[in-house]
Amino acid sequence: MRNKPWAFDYLKSNAHLVDVEENYKGRIKEFFPKEQDLHIEIGTGMGTFITSLAARNPNINYLGIEIDKNVMIRVVEKAEALKLDNLRLVLLDANHLNDYFQVSEVDKIYLNFSDPWPKNRHAKRRLTHSTFLTSYKSILREDAIVEFKTDNRGLFEFSLMSMNEFGMTFQNINLDVHAEEPEENIRTEYEEKFSSQGHKIYWIQASF
Amino acid sequence: MRNKPWAFDYLKSNAHLVDVEENYKGRIKEFFPKEQDLHIEIGTGMGTFITSLAARNPNINYLGIEIDKNVMIRVVEKAEALKLDNLRLVLLDANHLNDYFQVSEVDKIYLNFSDPWPKNRHAKRRLTHSTFLTSYKSILREDAIVEFKTDNRGLFEFSLMSMNEFGMTFQNINLDVHAEEPEENIRTEYEEKFSSQGHKIYWIQASF
Repeated sequence: MRNKPWAFDYLKSNAHLVDVEENYKGRIKEFFPKEQDLHIEIGTGMGTFITSLAARNPNINYLGIEIDKNVMIRVVEKAEALKLDNLRLVLLDANHLNDYFQVSEVDKIYLNFSDPWPKNRHAKRRLTHSTFLTSYKSILREDAIVEFKTDNRGLFEFSLMSMNEFGMTFQNINLDVHAEEPEENIRTEYEEKFSSQGHKIYWIQASF
Repeated sequence: MRNKPWAFDYLKSNAHLVDVEENYKGRIKEFFPKEQDLHIEIGTGMGTFITSLAARNPNINYLGIEIDKNVMIRVVEKAEALKLDNLRLVLLDANHLNDYFQVSEVDKIYLNFSDPWPKNRHAKRRLTHSTFLTSYKSILREDAIVEFKTDNRGLFEFSLMSMNEFGMTFQNINLDVHAEEPEENIRTEYEEKFSSQGHKIYWIQASF
């Protein structure tokens, strides 16, 4: 994604949709018109997934988290077009989840096609590393689900090991989502691309 | 495999290689000339895997377990041709492991291309069902490995869930063994067949 010098100003001009300067830190509920369950996606990419999900489920609040302001522009454009009361965004580093959210205030976490960080020395940056699992456990309510989808075999193998070692409970596993694609599956941009290249799509639901 | 009326007599005439009537129940160590670690394969199929492994590793005793006497003939033929001191076989139902072995006397368990029993009502027959995991835990020494390989996606998904729920620790996972095939991988008859049909080969090492 090319750097857009105007990205920051554009996002700030859409303060009704996207929290650019962590104004809602510690009080995310106030960002939504209705008080209802809060599901978050960590790393929205272009935003097809979270905008589709929010359009489908008006009774759930969705918060999309993305660290890249240039990418976030595309999500804001989609959200603006849809005019959904239950969809908000925040420009945030996933390392700061514990600062931004209160304990147990999130009802579900989605991770889709997260950066695989294939080098072993970068393992700590993978969003299913135990460091991140620790913060997910803290911000999630009890028995809440983490749902993770990727085409990256190495990352999925690592994630199964990491979640198992952390003591998480596997609720569902699918090692080829598109073989008999569930009706409710929302294909992300990456998912379309990598699936068309013959990659399997892996998926897990797990809880703490 | 066609039923061979002479199978039982043939196996009995090879009593130096195969325990047909559970004569070594409770004293399996006496079946081997040398006292060394004992690795077992539950369900040998045609026996390519365990005979190759035994030929490779003379310092480990290998016991192949198979319930089907018609299939066992083929394993005995292979074992007879190889004349290996460290390879023995037993005609045994995997449901009777706890009767046959003493507690903690097995050092490793291999499961290869086990029957998937795809219907939910047959889940209890799958060799990674908690009932079987309970008996593996009992006959294995502490920290010993269960190694499981299959091309069957449904069975592998089930096995990941079952092992995780049982509290097993995942040591290694590979969701496409043939992508960068490890030199030490021994391809079973099923593995050759299903891999050539484009199936992925799944593999896990886990401990209790």
